[in-house]
This record gives sequence, C-alpha cells and structure tokens, in this order.
Amino acid sequence: LEKYKIAVIPGDGIGTEVIAEGVKVLEKIAHIDGSFAFSFDYFPWGCEYYCKTGKVMDDDGLERLSKFDAIYLGAVGAPNVPDHISLRDLLIKIRQGFDQYVNLRPVKLLAGAPCPIKNINREDINMVVIRENSEGEYAGAGDWLYKGKEQEVVLQTSVFSRKGTERIIRYAYELARHENKTITSISKGNALNYSMVFWDEVFSEVGKEYPDVKQYTYLVDAAAMFFVKDPARFQVVVTSNLFGDILTDLGAAIAGGMGLAAGANINPEKKYPSMFEPIHGSAPDIAGKGIANPMASIWSAAQMLEFFGKKEWSNKIIRAIEKVLTEKTVLTADFGGKASTKAVGEEIIRQLSLLC
Amino acid sequence: LEKYKIAVIPGDGIGTEVIAEGVKVLEKIAHIDGSFAFSFDYFPWGCEYYCKTGKVMDDDGLERLSKFDAIYLGAVGAPNVPDHISLRDLLIKIRQGFDQYVNLRPVKLLAGAPCPIKNINREDINMVVIRENSEGEYAGAGDWLYKGKEQEVVLQTSVFSRKGTERIIRYAYELARHENKTITSISKGNALNYSMVFWDEVFSEVGKEYPDVKQYTYLVDAAAMFFVKDPARFQVVVTSNLFGDILTDLGAAIAGGMGLAAGANINPEKKYPSMFEPIHGSAPDIAGKGIANPMASIWSAAQMLEFFGKKEWSNKIIRAIEKVLTEKTVLTADFGGKASTKAVGEEIIRQLSLLC
Ligand SMILES: CC(C)[C@H](C(=O)O)[C@@H](O)C(=O)O
Ligand SMILES: CC(C)[C@H](C(=O)O)[C@@H](O)C(=O)O
Repeated sequence: LEKYKIAVIPGDGIGTEVIAEGVKVLEKIAHIDGSFAFSFDYFPWGCEYYCKTGKVMDDDGLERLSKFDAIYLGAVGAPNVPDHISLRDLLIKIRQGFDQYVNLRPVKLLAGAPCPIKNINREDINMVVIRENSEGEYAGAGDWLYKGKEQEVVLQTSVFSRKGTERIIRYAYELARHENKTITSISKGNALNYSMVFWDEVFSEVGKEYPDVKQYTYLVDAAAMFFVKDPARFQVVVTSNLFGDILTDLGAAIAGGMGLAAGANINPEKKYPSMFEPIHGSAPDIAGKGIANPMASIWSAAQMLEFFGKKEWSNKIIRAIEKVLTEKTVLTADFGGKASTKAVGEEIIRQLSLLC
Repeated sequence: LEKYKIAVIPGDGIGTEVIAEGVKVLEKIAHIDGSFAFSFDYFPWGCEYYCKTGKVMDDDGLERLSKFDAIYLGAVGAPNVPDHISLRDLLIKIRQGFDQYVNLRPVKLLAGAPCPIKNINREDINMVVIRENSEGEYAGAGDWLYKGKEQEVVLQTSVFSRKGTERIIRYAYELARHENKTITSISKGNALNYSMVFWDEVFSEVGKEYPDVKQYTYLVDAAAMFFVKDPARFQVVVTSNLFGDILTDLGAAIAGGMGLAAGANINPEKKYPSMFEPIHGSAPDIAGKGIANPMASIWSAAQMLEFFGKKEWSNKIIRAIEKVLTEKTVLTADFGGKASTKAVGEEIIRQLSLLC
C-alpha cells in the first residue's frame, strides 16, 4: 500500500469548508482504488491563529511541513489581519521557502460551466498558465524612506534571477512539447526595461532548444485584452509571478468563475513538498454559511493526484465535476443553485462512484 | 480668436492614418465654432525616424514640444525596433518629462458599440480609469548584474513617491467628488509589501478628506476578474502605472475594443503640454492599408477639447461616434464593416455637422 502524507492547512473563512470536501474526495478515491492511502495532518494556521498567538504559522512551520508529501491548503485571509502579514507569512512563505517555483493553473472551460463571454466554443478556453512562483515581483525586496516626510519614497524591487527565470520558462517549454501545444510568453518589455527585457531574452534563448514548439510573445496588456477577445490563442502560457496572478484571476472569470479555479504550487524536483490550493480567497462575506463552491478545491485535489502520478484519477475527478455542472441539480449559489458546500461535495463523490 | 498650438506626432503604422482623421475633426469643429482655431505642427518622430537618424525623437524634442498647448500622438512602435527603445525614448519620455502624471482613460460602452460580455446593460460599463503616469513601476530604475553568468540577476525597482502617489489619488478623489461618483483604488498590498502597502495607506489617508465620496479598494487580480464579471462596480478607478496599463486594455476589451479606446496624458497644472493618444498601438499587421479604426484617436481629440474647456464639443464628438456606431453603415473591419479609415472619419464629421 502506497502511503501519502498530506499536511492540511484549511486556513480561514471558506477555506475550512471547501477543504473538508476535497479531503473526502481523496479518501473516497483511495478507498475505491485500494492501492494507496492518505494520512491527513491538520495545521490550524491562519488569521485566527495569528489573533491568538501573534503568528500566522509557527516558527518551525516549514520544518514541520517538510516531512509531508504534499500540502493541501484552503484559503488565508481575514478582515482583521493585514493581508501583507497573513499572506506573506504563510502562503508566500511556503511557496518561496519550499521552492515551489511552478504555479500551474488550468484555465479550462469545463463542460457545463457557464462562460460570461459571447460566441465562445468550449474548446476555445483551454490553457494552462505556468506562473513563476518563487521570485520576481513577489521577492519582497524594497525600502521605505523618509517615512512621514515630504520626500517620502517607497521602493519595491522585482528580482529576476537567471536560474529562476530559466527554470520556469524551461518547465513551460517541456510541458508544451510534451502536450504538443503552443507556448506563449507574457511580459512587458516595452516598459519594464530591465526585468522584462531579460525575461524576453531568456524566453527566446531557451526557445532555440525547442524549435518544434510554436512560440508566441504577448505584452501583458494585450494578453489581458485577448483573454477576453480571443482566448483560443493561448495554450501553454508562461509568465511572471505578478502577471500570472492577474491573468489567472482573469482566466477564472472567463472559465466559469472563482468557484472553479484550481491551482498547484509545484517543486518539480520534489526536494520539498508541493502545495495544492484553490485560487479563491477566504471570502469573509459568505464564510461560515456552508454555501461556498468546493469545486476549485476538489479540482486542486485532482492536481495533487496527478502530481502523484495518478492521472486517471485526476481525470475522473474532473469528469465528475463536469457531470455535476452539466446536470445542474446540485449547484452552489455562485452557479445559481441552492445546494450547500457539503451537498456539492457529496454529489461529486456520487458521480465519481458512478464513473468507476 | 483663441489659438491652440498642437504638436502632432503621427508616429508609426496606423498612427499616421488615424491621426489624420482626428486632425480633420478638430479643424471642422474650429471652423463650425468660429471662436477658436488650431495650428498643427508635425514631428516625424518614431521608428522610421530612428532607423534614419538613430534617434526616436530629437535630443531637443521635449524643449521644442514645450512650446505647444497640447500634443496629439498616433502610435509608436515597429517590428524592427526594440519596443523598450522606441517607447521609453518617446512616449514614456514625454509622459514623464512633461509630468503628465494623470493618464485618464474612459472605459465606457458607447451606444452601438459591441460588448463581448453576456448580460451587460450599456450603463454597466461606464468608468474612468485614472492611471498614475509618471513613476511607479515605469520609473525605469533597475540593474542587470552578472550578465551571462550563472548568478545573473536582474532588478527592476518601482518607485512610489509621497508626492507622486498623493497627487494622483487626490486627482481621482476630486473627480469622483465633482462627478458624484464612487472611487475605487486598485492595488496589491498582500504581495507587494512596500509599494502597495504605501499606496493603500495614502488612499485611505487622503480619503479622510473626502468623507462624501464612497470609497472601495480591490486587489488587482480581483479587479481584473470583476471587470469581466461585474464592471458596474467601478466608477472612478485610481491605480498605479502598470496596473492601469493592464486594466485599461482589459477595459478596452469589454467596452468595444481597441478601436474605441481613448486616452489623455494630463499635466493638470498646465506647466507642460498634455498629450492625447489612443491606447492602441501601431498595428503593423494592418498598417498602410487604410483600414484602421480612427474612432479612438478621434475620441482622444475630444478629450483634448474637453481639456481646453470645450466640453460641449467633446460631447458632440462622442455623440457623433455613437451615431456612426448605431447606424452601422460606415464601420471599419474591427466592427465587421468594410469602410476605410478615411470613410469613417468623414462619416463622423458628417454626423457632427448634423448635430450642429
Ligand atoms: C493571496 C495572494 C497573496 C495570492 C497571490 O497574489 O499570489 C493570490 O492572489 C493567488 O493568486 O494565489
Ligand atoms: C506602449 C506602452 C509603453 C504603453 C504603456 O505601457 O504605457 C501602452 O501600452 C499604453 O498603455 O499606453
């Protein structure tokens, strides 16, 4: 029996609610399959923890997490804790501390998912965004000078290393080659005269090793426009940390909403655990009501299974979600339904069983 | 007779084609009105000029432009000149050199304009984006270390000064108050732990002076999503240079396309000339064919008239554009028509005359 040790960080708000459903799905699959099993260890970190202890995550947090095969995270953030504390000290700390330099986010319009854009065929929205996840604009470097004075000035420095830039671009090229897809690099060299000129250079340099992969480049502003106007242009997308952040939320908007947006933070070398988390936040406005959509977190669990080499199970989960979306009888409020988080979780499990 | 001295920089590609129509509209209006007149001086700067002279703009360019009441610019950029040269040495140089710190871009769905989003009422898309235009991510500060070595690292530093941040936010508050609208600040404090935390502080600080203005804040990723999902949330939007760049292209996408996206680069103190330019680029793919849509550049000319205190004329131009859009008989290819740039320009002038 293969054993996978999962660290669960439900986090805040709806994070706890949606993660519970994802865990049930994983357990169900292990049960049906029989050849592997999960153990789940829970970590109470997040904003509530911060209010009690003054820390969002324990000081030895990374060390403790390093023992696990994967991290499954709900969402972090609460109105009473500044975001730059709760997020940087937990989410971003794990991403960077564990060198999860690949943030892989599917932007795919599932069967049955609503699309807000006119004249779109389902196949037109089917990309994977590979977001740099360890440095760039999120390096956290900067300075705040002359605080409170007239000449006050604040600096925020993006850091793009050769290593960091090359490896993410290479990862995307490999994926594009492997899946026989085009690659599109999204940057902003016409204005960001150091970082993005460098990014563009690396993209074209590495690209020479992949003459078989069709290569495109877009400015981030134009890309944002085309995500709406003509998303079929994009297949494998590779971009910086900040641009990936913006574009994947936009991607979520065109591909059915935040309730369906999954994400994986991967350390491809498996030197450290990877982390799977829906893109959505803790949604304080609906937290505690049991009405959040668990599909994104369940899809993230599917990404975890794929990462463990269980692609068939990953596909089955996605098909089960599509079934639930298509039948439309058990949906949460974001999709116009009245079902609870739990009910949707159960319905996905029921559909999963039917597929087996 | 009031006299306005306009410096015209048609630039590259379709820039020259669309600017010609805007100039005709301005001349027509001066002619009908009779109380003011324009003089137009042309500057051949841009990529062609660069290929001949090694400069995108003459060294004394800013000095020469400083004598004018306004600058009217088409578009800059050509495939054979690196964008970070052509843009930084002309467009960005003028914006920053003339302290045009307000980039004002309407995102408004005109009557007759196509909207790619389902279930949108025309009134739902009616915002003004106030983009910081003089510093921030576009400061151009950075470094490129260990070039070609394994430890190569590239830094790009955003610079947010107290003065620069306060004045743009104040401008937006004044506009919101004056037009009785809500204000929304778009930032990213949860990840950009210096610059955007500062931005958020200034927004809330200055906001104390405007208790009568309803104030909202969005993270840039969430904002991108809501531009598609629920644009009616936004009225006056204030944001940084880079975020404004991305969001206004996205804004163009939801409000009828780049063919309709106008912009003004304003130095509110009128110490330096302001610059009016459509948001779209030089579009090398359709350049020289005479089929580009001149509506964006004509709308930018309307912004110039408003800046000169001729709001009625500005409104009339927009109404004339709406007429052409609604009648649908003379439209360029981007709107499914077969008309030339010139024909659309002439039709707008014809509709203008009918309105007088
Ligand atoms: C919460 C925030 C720090 C995070 C990010 O910006 O990366 C989120 O928006 C995301 O996309 O995962
Ligand atoms: C051409 C480019 C430098 C410019 C910008 O990024 O500001 C353009 O995209 C714009 O929005 O005016």
